[in-house]
Amino acid sequence: MKVTRLSGFPEYLPSERIVEQHFLDVIRETFELHGFTSLETRAVEPVERLLGKGGDADKEIYGVTRLADSGAERSSREPELGLHFDLTVPFARFVLENAGKLAFPYRRYQIQKVWRGERPQEGRYREFTQADIDVVDVGELAPHFEAEMPLVIAEVFARLPIGRMTIQVNNRKIPEGFYQGIGIGIDDVTEIQDTLRIVDKLDKIGADKVRTLLVEAGRTPEQADQCLALAEIRTEDLSFVDRVRALGVQHPTLDEGLDALAAVIRSGLEHAPGAMVADLKIARGLDYYTGTVYETQLEGHESWGSFCSGGRYDALASDGRTTYPGVGISIGVSRLLGLLLSKGLVAASRATPAAVLVAVVEEDSRAESAAVARALRARGIPCEVAPSAAKFGKQIRYADRRGIPFVWFPGAGDVEHQVKDIRSGDQVDADPQSWQPPAQDLRPSVEAVVPSP
Amino acid sequence: MKVTRLSGFPEYLPSERIVEQHFLDVIRETFELHGFTSLETRAVEPVERLLGKGGDADKEIYGVTRLADSGAERSSREPELGLHFDLTVPFARFVLENAGKLAFPYRRYQIQKVWRGERPQEGRYREFTQADIDVVDVGELAPHFEAEMPLVIAEVFARLPIGRMTIQVNNRKIPEGFYQGIGIGIDDVTEIQDTLRIVDKLDKIGADKVRTLLVEAGRTPEQADQCLALAEIRTEDLSFVDRVRALGVQHPTLDEGLDALAAVIRSGLEHAPGAMVADLKIARGLDYYTGTVYETQLEGHESWGSFCSGGRYDALASDGRTTYPGVGISIGVSRLLGLLLSKGLVAASRATPAAVLVAVVEEDSRAESAAVARALRARGIPCEVAPSAAKFGKQIRYADRRGIPFVWFPGAGDVEHQVKDIRSGDQVDADPQSWQPPAQDLRPSVEAVVPSP
Repeated sequence: MKVTRLSGFPEYLPSERIVEQHFLDVIRETFELHGFTSLETRAVEPVERLLGKGGDADKEIYGVTRLADSGAERSSREPELGLHFDLTVPFARFVLENAGKLAFPYRRYQIQKVWRGERPQEGRYREFTQADIDVVDVGELAPHFEAEMPLVIAEVFARLPIGRMTIQVNNRKIPEGFYQGIGIGIDDVTEIQDTLRIVDKLDKIGADKVRTLLVEAGRTPEQADQCLALAEIRTEDLSFVDRVRALGVQHPTLDEGLDALAAVIRSGLEHAPGAMVADLKIARGLDYYTGTVYETQLEGHESWGSFCSGGRYDALASDGRTTYPGVGISIGVSRLLGLLLSKGLVAASRATPAAVLVAVVEEDSRAESAAVARALRARGIPCEVAPSAAKFGKQIRYADRRGIPFVWFPGAGDVEHQVKDIRSGDQVDADPQSWQPPAQDLRPSVEAVVPSP
Repeated sequence: MKVTRLSGFPEYLPSERIVEQHFLDVIRETFELHGFTSLETRAVEPVERLLGKGGDADKEIYGVTRLADSGAERSSREPELGLHFDLTVPFARFVLENAGKLAFPYRRYQIQKVWRGERPQEGRYREFTQADIDVVDVGELAPHFEAEMPLVIAEVFARLPIGRMTIQVNNRKIPEGFYQGIGIGIDDVTEIQDTLRIVDKLDKIGADKVRTLLVEAGRTPEQADQCLALAEIRTEDLSFVDRVRALGVQHPTLDEGLDALAAVIRSGLEHAPGAMVADLKIARGLDYYTGTVYETQLEGHESWGSFCSGGRYDALASDGRTTYPGVGISIGVSRLLGLLLSKGLVAASRATPAAVLVAVVEEDSRAESAAVARALRARGIPCEVAPSAAKFGKQIRYADRRGIPFVWFPGAGDVEHQVKDIRSGDQVDADPQSWQPPAQDLRPSVEAVVPSP
């Protein structure tokens, strides 16, 4: 049978996978340092639940049916289960299902694959990994969690071998209040969503086209200009408040939004200076966000869009009696790695965890080599034993091909054990019970690569 | 919409998930110590490829179709993609697809979910996690890898908080040669597979029924007795060789098998004493095993069957010109966890990664608490800041409910910082820049629980 790649389903070779593992490890470690607990949900949800959220996501859902059930007699039946297309829908379901057993506020992280049956394009996948954090509470959620989310994410990005990532923060109440203050949505509340959706295209289509679309949608030219003036405000400090005030619009919802955003930015200035900007054009398409919203840009790769987005929601999960408001943010791990790996911006120091290859002198003495390996492993040094008792030159090439930095030559009788750093050629006597590689060689390292000009 | 559990799709609460994470971390760490590189394959394969392997697995495959494509006009069409039901089929496909980019012998580990659409029963899941290691080479595979696999697995089990796990090892050439030596399969080679399949039921149905089935299948009563005599041999040392010889059967394939199994058991006695037994009834149903085969039993839970199985295969992957022989073994992580968690045999020390809860004196001083948390995290101490400036008693209860061992009370001005061990009640002055929790409290620990009599 022919072996074919499936478009949109990325798979990594060993050295690329080490890069991915490093990213996932850093993300997990940072989330755990901040006291988030891990959740892993099943891959499938009832299709009915998947269709209930996320706009026109129905076009993108993969249905799942037992092959034995998909025969003729059941062919007219729609699949009852589908693969989840994000981690928010299963998280909300999990909270409702287990509310009695969870401690609130519930801080959870979730790093899993998701699937979308869309047409693949550059940087878009049909199967990809997301890394989410959310905090949900019962009934009410304290606003300080909205300030905490981007601090966690800023720490993740600071620990990853990538360029400067800027977290753009806005509060949905700012445009919503501002729009109402200039007469949008007074008679027809859908005008607000409408306007938000058009302004959200600013980066893609530019101010002129946004102005045209706004007027076509029924806004006056003056309203359109005011909307654009608001959207163009972007400041690293608290000066956005004065700049909004200077536009002369008054509305209590606007005041609330400005106070809330100022609190988030103030916390950013204190705990993660330089990581955040107040960016008043950020809207996030999804209807369920009600407060702070987040997007991110990687410097020099702004056209790739946001690698990490989220926001505050008041009623993502509700069982009718109890509502679970929350705030969350999601890192698009596969999209970020896809960019970095395809542009050669990040690389692993080797293609295997092994720091040492223990050479085999002759096949009959393999047990002695295995004993050396056992002694090294007992002290946490990853190693493997050479696959054959070939000439040492060939065994060294085996190590070299995988980037294994050290080759160990077992001693016997009066012959001392020796270890060779195959990068420098240095070879020294060594004791399997005590020799330690330099700390930076113990595990593969993953570093940013500066592209040559 | 009603929230319902899906039978066969396990999901864990925070403290259970910490147990699962610990198991997965230990498995990964041990695999990496042995120089296995990580592979993660896509969740889907062409249905055609899935159907090509694994016997009657077709009944168990979940087909995957875009929901948008599953409407009326395409309803007669079978799904082209399916979720993988093991990690071996995707691994074999990955090797063929990337042979030119991989370094052989290729040592890979793979820890992923797999899906089977079977009727759920105790300990069986529709979605579950497996952890596999395999070594494949081009054309030929050195026999020492067959001895290496169970050593890696023995080390995994020794590091996990579980009871004694015994690795049962056999070599398919032993029964195959033995059977031929007593006249089975001389005219009709399928008699050998047939006999193996019946003998494989020994643990389930007992010797008497196996004898009956063998005779019904056309073996003579004498042949049946000899088959059972072979299957009953189980030794921790090399004495199995003499016991087989004592049965008086001669065949060159039998000799090969005995030599090969002796090499594996000898390596086990040297590098992992007590971990392995030669158990000549182990056959493994799957046709593609050609040499060493492995199963495992957890002491006291033998009726749960094997938690870890595998073997040597000569031609799992082949592109027609080149054949990739290999040897592999797979840990059924979800089945093992399902047993341990449902019987209460393992538990985590807490339900969150956080070692410290930093209390908040009043909402206006939250930034000071956050600064303490930042200082602790900078030194790798997982912590969270209290969700509200409630009375300290309530904040302590918040920590207690999650098992967080320490609560930090931020100092201010002349007041020193203090940290309280809420288990002992001890409260001492502490400096956020230098205080360190005891090593055993830094991360949640996962320990075996001895059931009360």
